[in-house]
Amino acid sequence: MKHSGKFIVLEGPDGSGKTTQIGNIERYMRERGADFISTREPGGVSVAEKIRSVILDVDNAMSGLTECMLYASARREHLLQKVIPALEAGKTVICDRYVMSSLSYQGYGRELGAAVLDINKLAINVDGFEYWPDMNIYLDVPPEIGLQRIHEKNDGREINRLDLEAEDFHRKVRDGYLHLIREYEGQFTTVDASQNEKAVFADIKRVLDDLLF
Amino acid sequence: MKHSGKFIVLEGPDGSGKTTQIGNIERYMRERGADFISTREPGGVSVAEKIRSVILDVDNAMSGLTECMLYASARREHLLQKVIPALEAGKTVICDRYVMSSLSYQGYGRELGAAVLDINKLAINVDGFEYWPDMNIYLDVPPEIGLQRIHEKNDGREINRLDLEAEDFHRKVRDGYLHLIREYEGQFTTVDASQNEKAVFADIKRVLDDLLF
Repeated sequence: MKHSGKFIVLEGPDGSGKTTQIGNIERYMRERGADFISTREPGGVSVAEKIRSVILDVDNAMSGLTECMLYASARREHLLQKVIPALEAGKTVICDRYVMSSLSYQGYGRELGAAVLDINKLAINVDGFEYWPDMNIYLDVPPEIGLQRIHEKNDGREINRLDLEAEDFHRKVRDGYLHLIREYEGQFTTVDASQNEKAVFADIKRVLDDLLF
Repeated sequence: MKHSGKFIVLEGPDGSGKTTQIGNIERYMRERGADFISTREPGGVSVAEKIRSVILDVDNAMSGLTECMLYASARREHLLQKVIPALEAGKTVICDRYVMSSLSYQGYGRELGAAVLDINKLAINVDGFEYWPDMNIYLDVPPEIGLQRIHEKNDGREINRLDLEAEDFHRKVRDGYLHLIREYEGQFTTVDASQNEKAVFADIKRVLDDLLF
């Protein structure tokens, strides 16, 4: 490794409880007096935010691969301007989603395939070194539970036809993650996120303790 | 080829007279009654224009490779939304700069190397087919003549220290083109653009006649 801080990424499908657990991680890191930053793309990096606003502008119909290249551009700037400086200053970086999200959502969910990896490998390559996380903590949840949680959080309404299409997409995303875990063995720790919040965090804490303390 | 129209790109360093010659080409194509469009990136394609405005915004300091990815994203949308529909409708497409400009300016001029080709190959790949031009017409001009022309056009002032740095960059760009011509033999026709406008266009016309008429 070129840097001294640890680079830890939280990954998982929608409804896996990532946001809640990032909050728990931040509290725990502060309790332990750890020197860390917690971030997510575009993470307040001005160019990256402008790129993201192009992607999210509803007028901007664009191909899946163009979108993937734009996300990768924003990822690169967030990496260069925020992640790498923190790692080089010896800080732990906790990041909400990174390359594996693109591989699962765009590569598998949208079926864009291997081009997504090619683009991302270029995006995270800085002076010949690819910035892969020291650990992806993957919060695994079956799509039916993940979607159920999203609905409960939003309005508690019943699942409709569109949601069933959504379930098909979410199933592809989750299958994507399960493929990636086999392909990138050693880069992932899987946590069963169908457990309650406390039990999930207990598992995450064990991973943090192993890596950091 | 998947399409029926011809895809012709004008390439060359700054000061090679591309803009003037594009005008001559358009006039000639109209005279011959050719079914054609003349375009340049971002070419009025809304997403591509927004991407370009992110690149050109002076506040947006970004790495060379990020810039290259953004240009490639804009290229892809211009290709998908404007170039391919025209080619498929049987029209000739005349385009002011394309992939070879990125390879020479960013790959060689900015010394970003092979990553520029990797990114561009992804950007021009649509359903497994790479949209390379049927012909790159390369207007070759030594950097000292190209720069001299730019100065004459602008304000006729003398060449200063910054211009000498610029000359070094322009030399790298031109050397880049000369490398590319050897590497992509058969994709280029070189025209000696140090000749006068009329002689240059006579050479270009011969290329068009061979390809189209």
